[in-house]
Amino acid sequence: MNTGRKGILIVVSGFSGAGKGTIMKRLLERYPDRYALSVSATTRAPRQGEEHGREYFFVSTEEFESMIKREELIEYARYVNNYYGTPRSYVEEKLLEGRDVILEIEIQGALKVREKFPDTLLLFVTPPSAKELKARLVGRGTEDEATIASRLNRAVEESRGIENYDYFVVNDDLDTCVAQVHGIIEGEHYRVSRNTGRIEEMRQELHSFLKGE
Amino acid sequence: MNTGRKGILIVVSGFSGAGKGTIMKRLLERYPDRYALSVSATTRAPRQGEEHGREYFFVSTEEFESMIKREELIEYARYVNNYYGTPRSYVEEKLLEGRDVILEIEIQGALKVREKFPDTLLLFVTPPSAKELKARLVGRGTEDEATIASRLNRAVEESRGIENYDYFVVNDDLDTCVAQVHGIIEGEHYRVSRNTGRIEEMRQELHSFLKGE
Repeated sequence: MNTGRKGILIVVSGFSGAGKGTIMKRLLERYPDRYALSVSATTRAPRQGEEHGREYFFVSTEEFESMIKREELIEYARYVNNYYGTPRSYVEEKLLEGRDVILEIEIQGALKVREKFPDTLLLFVTPPSAKELKARLVGRGTEDEATIASRLNRAVEESRGIENYDYFVVNDDLDTCVAQVHGIIEGEHYRVSRNTGRIEEMRQELHSFLKGE
Repeated sequence: MNTGRKGILIVVSGFSGAGKGTIMKRLLERYPDRYALSVSATTRAPRQGEEHGREYFFVSTEEFESMIKREELIEYARYVNNYYGTPRSYVEEKLLEGRDVILEIEIQGALKVREKFPDTLLLFVTPPSAKELKARLVGRGTEDEATIASRLNRAVEESRGIENYDYFVVNDDLDTCVAQVHGIIEGEHYRVSRNTGRIEEMRQELHSFLKGE
């Protein structure tokens, strides 16, 4: 589908437990022709049930490093001896098709993406309150206290970067939140800065009328 | 109604014939609790059917000039020997109530408003094409060629200022356009810059959890 309008690159970040993954999954289910979810490349081994090209593109360290050299990644980072990165070609292809492309990455990556694509929209998702955030972290029931404390610590760190984002969305009710996120992205398409070509065209047309053409 | 969130001040400008008035009327009909339309003060005489406090606040030149002195106007201008201006008190009161307040003024006024209220949202409305714009100007059937030419001239002038606006909306179908304008304003409520208090609050809460409070 090509709507005739340019796609927007969107980075979604947020606290662990904010439900980013669920929001995006729902967004894609509801508007399958409008959005595309970027699939990251990684050097880590696939876990049970994970599929190449769906959860990740699983590549070797050698392959990943040659992708870096060939500038085929918009951003990449190394965690615990593994690389993770966003392949440029998929993103650019979908944007050209007129789709809004969503990346789920953390703040360092988000800022790198915006350096390369200044029009990138940065969205930060949070649970309704810090209390609720803590409850969601604890609620998984799979983590010990030290892990929870470390996640809270990380949340405090992340919260310092929110001012770099464009929008701040509270995930209280999932459906409401999905509608909000969709509305925000939809509204962004009408930004003057995203319509400069169209505006210039109208200006030229107006000029030609004035000259009696 | 107080939604607990701060109202947004919105300036709507656009080409003559773009249907700004109709859009705003429809917006207020559809969401009567959400919006307030600012009523201007003027020194010109009321026309048949116009009501004090509805179309305008009709005041004497002396009154208007003392409003200027007392800084009771957000912006004002003089056209053809008459003053027109936006009273500050009404706007501030409605914003505090949590309503989004809409002003319909042209670019000079819009820029003055944004100087005083930096969070002001500037929206530019246009017909679908320059051709359509011309057709709408001619279509009124009440203007001679010179008037139409002068309006086109003015449109060219106005088109030079569009880059000062935040959003650019095309009024092709009225209902679609009203939904777009509402969506844009709704989305703006989630801007990080409009939620700094809330973000800071969450940060404080997170900190207190970390300290085991």
